[in-house]
Amino acid sequence: MSASMPRPGLGLQHFFQAQGIAVIGASDDVTKIGGRPVHMLIKYGYAGPIYPVNPKAGTIQGLTAYPSVRDTPTAPQLAILAVPAAATPAALRDCAARGVKAAIVLSSGFVEAGPEGAALQAELVQIAHASGMRVLGPNCLGAVNVADRLIGSFSIALEENMPPAGQVGIVSQSGNVGSHTMQSVARRGMGVSRFIATGNEADVDVADGIAALAEDPATRIILCCMETCRHAGKLIAALRMAREQGKPVIVLKIGSTEKGQAAAASHTGALTGSDAVIDAVFRRHGVLRVRSVEALIDIGHAASLLMPNRLPRTDAVTLVAASGGFGIMMADAMSEAGLTLPALAAHTQQRIREAVPTASTGNPVDASAQMSSRPDILHKMLTALLDDPAEGALILFMSLSLYSTRLRGIYLQALAQVRASHPDRLLMIISQGPADAVEQITALGIPVFASIDAAATGVAGLLRLNQRLGAAIPRDAESAAQGIDAAVFRNEFEAKRALARAGIDVPHEVIVHDAAAAVSAAEAIGYPVVLKIASEDIAHKTEAGGVALNLADAPSVRSAYARVLDNAARYAPDARIDGVLVAPMLRGGTEMIAGVSQDPVFGPVVMVGMGGIYAEVLKDVAVQTAPVSEQEALAMIRSLKMFAILDGARGQPKADIEAAARTVARLSEFAYQHRDDIAEIDMNPILLRAQGQGAVVLDALMIPRAAAVL
Amino acid sequence: MSASMPRPGLGLQHFFQAQGIAVIGASDDVTKIGGRPVHMLIKYGYAGPIYPVNPKAGTIQGLTAYPSVRDTPTAPQLAILAVPAAATPAALRDCAARGVKAAIVLSSGFVEAGPEGAALQAELVQIAHASGMRVLGPNCLGAVNVADRLIGSFSIALEENMPPAGQVGIVSQSGNVGSHTMQSVARRGMGVSRFIATGNEADVDVADGIAALAEDPATRIILCCMETCRHAGKLIAALRMAREQGKPVIVLKIGSTEKGQAAAASHTGALTGSDAVIDAVFRRHGVLRVRSVEALIDIGHAASLLMPNRLPRTDAVTLVAASGGFGIMMADAMSEAGLTLPALAAHTQQRIREAVPTASTGNPVDASAQMSSRPDILHKMLTALLDDPAEGALILFMSLSLYSTRLRGIYLQALAQVRASHPDRLLMIISQGPADAVEQITALGIPVFASIDAAATGVAGLLRLNQRLGAAIPRDAESAAQGIDAAVFRNEFEAKRALARAGIDVPHEVIVHDAAAAVSAAEAIGYPVVLKIASEDIAHKTEAGGVALNLADAPSVRSAYARVLDNAARYAPDARIDGVLVAPMLRGGTEMIAGVSQDPVFGPVVMVGMGGIYAEVLKDVAVQTAPVSEQEALAMIRSLKMFAILDGARGQPKADIEAAARTVARLSEFAYQHRDDIAEIDMNPILLRAQGQGAVVLDALMIPRAAAVL
Repeated sequence: MSASMPRPGLGLQHFFQAQGIAVIGASDDVTKIGGRPVHMLIKYGYAGPIYPVNPKAGTIQGLTAYPSVRDTPTAPQLAILAVPAAATPAALRDCAARGVKAAIVLSSGFVEAGPEGAALQAELVQIAHASGMRVLGPNCLGAVNVADRLIGSFSIALEENMPPAGQVGIVSQSGNVGSHTMQSVARRGMGVSRFIATGNEADVDVADGIAALAEDPATRIILCCMETCRHAGKLIAALRMAREQGKPVIVLKIGSTEKGQAAAASHTGALTGSDAVIDAVFRRHGVLRVRSVEALIDIGHAASLLMPNRLPRTDAVTLVAASGGFGIMMADAMSEAGLTLPALAAHTQQRIREAVPTASTGNPVDASAQMSSRPDILHKMLTALLDDPAEGALILFMSLSLYSTRLRGIYLQALAQVRASHPDRLLMIISQGPADAVEQITALGIPVFASIDAAATGVAGLLRLNQRLGAAIPRDAESAAQGIDAAVFRNEFEAKRALARAGIDVPHEVIVHDAAAAVSAAEAIGYPVVLKIASEDIAHKTEAGGVALNLADAPSVRSAYARVLDNAARYAPDARIDGVLVAPMLRGGTEMIAGVSQDPVFGPVVMVGMGGIYAEVLKDVAVQTAPVSEQEALAMIRSLKMFAILDGARGQPKADIEAAARTVARLSEFAYQHRDDIAEIDMNPILLRAQGQGAVVLDALMIPRAAAVL
Repeated sequence: MSASMPRPGLGLQHFFQAQGIAVIGASDDVTKIGGRPVHMLIKYGYAGPIYPVNPKAGTIQGLTAYPSVRDTPTAPQLAILAVPAAATPAALRDCAARGVKAAIVLSSGFVEAGPEGAALQAELVQIAHASGMRVLGPNCLGAVNVADRLIGSFSIALEENMPPAGQVGIVSQSGNVGSHTMQSVARRGMGVSRFIATGNEADVDVADGIAALAEDPATRIILCCMETCRHAGKLIAALRMAREQGKPVIVLKIGSTEKGQAAAASHTGALTGSDAVIDAVFRRHGVLRVRSVEALIDIGHAASLLMPNRLPRTDAVTLVAASGGFGIMMADAMSEAGLTLPALAAHTQQRIREAVPTASTGNPVDASAQMSSRPDILHKMLTALLDDPAEGALILFMSLSLYSTRLRGIYLQALAQVRASHPDRLLMIISQGPADAVEQITALGIPVFASIDAAATGVAGLLRLNQRLGAAIPRDAESAAQGIDAAVFRNEFEAKRALARAGIDVPHEVIVHDAAAAVSAAEAIGYPVVLKIASEDIAHKTEAGGVALNLADAPSVRSAYARVLDNAARYAPDARIDGVLVAPMLRGGTEMIAGVSQDPVFGPVVMVGMGGIYAEVLKDVAVQTAPVSEQEALAMIRSLKMFAILDGARGQPKADIEAAARTVARLSEFAYQHRDDIAEIDMNPILLRAQGQGAVVLDALMIPRAAAVL
């Protein structure tokens, strides 16, 4: 977090706890965006003064209206603006002059509408910055404090009723997605603390929203829908605030495929950052990323039931169904989600068979329809399962049983009993059924998933969430940028020398300017050697005929020296030649690649992957923002699809992945230090040897920032 | 289909249209499995005579009971057996003696219960075969004909009510999964024709069920849940019957991961075949395979609404939402499912903007909340979209609008209008809402999916289903097996000679027995050459030091000849040496692999994949049962993850994939002809050259069936 960055969430309390609200552009028509907030503030009973503002003044929805915010009896702390885009800057200036602390601009017609709108939006930004007033929107669905009935929104989700007050905070860039989330959360019987939709994010953004919810005592869990991150440091600072408060943040990041990102760009007028980079940032900063609004709600709901002490602690699950077929489907889905199915203790198996003689007591347990024939049988079986010494989650498949009045009674009785007798054990249900029956189960603190796939995604997500909540909060990289000698951009020799100074292994190499020196160098290095042309004008040395491999003696070196120079001269007659590089011919081991590029939002990003065309075609790489620790680099390497090859697959020796991790970590540190000068670094290939034998960067290329801009 | 195999489904009509039903082991207790069928036959009004059979005779549930099936007033066509396993064979013999046509054994305690039960099940098989009576089960949930109220089942799904009669036929190995499907289908308002659950499959299996539904005039669509296929030819014949009737078959194959397959084995006591092979069989024989019971029901429901002429014909979709955020999520999910998002015609875009001025008219269309503000606006926008010249599906995201009384009215009115004005256009909805509102929309013939992911899976599945319904029905491979000279198993030289006779390109090679002959051969072939030891006792030639590469002249060949033999003698002193192979040293191109193995159910299976360790670790292979046509082989090659490498990725020349396909097709034909003798064939590597340059098998190995058994 840079020193000049204001604290995320600063001043956002005024959106939620305002004394006095002006609605500018207020209307008598409750279906209009200037009518709806007035209507809902009255209908749901906001306790402070409500000031409709309209040039015609008079009375609006039974309240005295004022021609301007300058004319209200007291200064409102919050203003809701529902005037046309062109009239918004003037209205906002009035608010600033009146001492309004926070303003919500609901109107559209700004950056999303073209250049004129963009100019209007720039005016809003200027007014906000000049006055210190926080501005939410424009083109947004506003903010809601459920407990205090403070509704700065025209969301249709609130038209018929308010959600119950509770502990789930929702922050969404998209108003509709946020609104859908709020309504779905409420339909599950969960309470909402605050809702904030940031729209075009002229001033307040999703990071501010996360920070405000992190600081809000009513909020215990933060659900977030995000399209674009514009300020990396601010987002990371907000996520740190949430972690320091122990509040889980679950994010639905919208626009992950190219097609989706194209749609995102047209929607918000902002670049959607690289999906892999944001994924890495989320992972590092404790966020659970989900892939659908259903998973956001499912996992949010389950987490709210299970916090603080029943979130899954291991990847072990015990599966129980009245049917072998569903047991197999559960086993398939859970294994695919990365969960494991340990065997039950012998004693547990025996107790299950005592309760349900027809049960098959593997994992999944096929408990047959007998398990639900009587409440005492079900209770006995569930008790045996919850007494099992394993730490894992127990997942019970109930199919459509809740639709049967008889079975509903049996299940509810047994579940209530075991929930009371085993308050600390993690039990989850897969079931469809009438909404009231499902709510009776969740009221016991038992999460219910509607399908096997939802449960697998949910349990795996809850486990990751818990792991991330428990992980150490990473330190910010704070060191100042350092300059670098421009020589590193000249050729591979200089680039590798710089990497060597950063502690990265490179071959012992010499740059020479005549054939005799080449032979002496080769003899000092030891045969066989490689010769390579060194020129800042020849990036593709092999294509230029500028490389001679596997030279075994002095005559070969001598003739290769001449050939390499000749080829280079033919390939690029005007190229500046820095000399010829003499290097040992290294073989054996596995080829990897690593590199650094610049993310427009998150800065230097380090990448590591397997070498070769197969790996390249499959894009088998892992990324993280620089700098990364050796431990993080190791996790990146382990996450590669082809990691098995480094880990001794098919009779290969295990590779020195610790050395590879060290190389990646040092590369990332180097790139971070020189982030103002270096745009890109390529290390290709890195020769990774057998365990304990190290990793050597055989070729490297650095591109300066100025060049990258061209 | 072999001549000796009975027609699948033969005699199954008696399970559905029986005149007279005996329930053996009938009980007065309607919760017992012997009580429930009697209760339901009476309750739902089966029209024929019902004969409870119980040694105590007297009256059961108000009906006269009989001590044995031999004592009933008329001979029942169907018997339902609910007696203990040990008593079942005797009861079944009585049925056969009485002339019963079909028997359902509901009881468990057979092969799933251990060796004793397996012996009892073998008795049932014997009785069925000897009498010609068809036996369903044991350990099954039976059969139901919904229209005729014929309930040969104790399914809890039928406890409270029957599904409506309709066109969906359900065949399931697992009773619970089938029952869940039937109940879910009914909850969606779809009608069911017949239900059959095959359980342990002593006699009647899933293939019989598919065939019976294919022949049933009431059934228009077949939903199937399958764990194990025991008879390949029978399944394929049944699938052909369904295709000839133009009835789609949608299959949920249970047990796709190793963990799931392990659970499947314990559940059914039968081997679950390789998942990739069954996948290939389904693809070839027109089946749409789904991955969850929700997809089975969603796609089954949508297909029943859209058949016969509104199933998707192209991969194009037009997406519409009131929200940019949901538009992006739809775009993401649809692209990931392989669908495309073409631009709308300029005229269509203009008409949309006329209806909804705030709309952004890309694809996805971000139509803003304005689109649903009035029924006429929504109608105008939808009409513009459905008038668009594109052939694709229109998918409208409605979020939670149906929960709002006001919006529900607006949507229903507009949807009813456009459905009437555009009866042939494909329109689908993504929405949650009250069940009755969703049913109002589906009653218009418009499928409704509950989530974006379900819609993406659904639309992609419906497209594949339609493509498969339209594809030509493949001919059965019918040719008799041919013998082969055992020499092919001796060494690579003989194996390749046999492949060459089958029309597959191999290098010009010579087998020699002294160094002078090696030199002459090398000179005839042209330098550089390769020497390889030829011995049936040395499978791993490189490991044995039995290969010398890149020999450029006569002295090199001479010394290599001696070295190769020496190494082989040291590696395997007792090995029988057939000679030394002299072959040209071929380079360039891309390495592929192909091979044949035996599936225990489906026989010879041909595999093709990329060469090299990366491809091997990623298991990047495609399989299909032999024989495959060149066209099928080409599709297999195109389906490889790394196909891009063959198709000119990263500046590589395009590879001769037609030659590769020819090689695979000929290999498969060869393997099919010699299926009784050859267990496995390995062609590794195949050198695939640039387009038009061919494919050459550099090494090959064949393993005889006898050896494979060891």
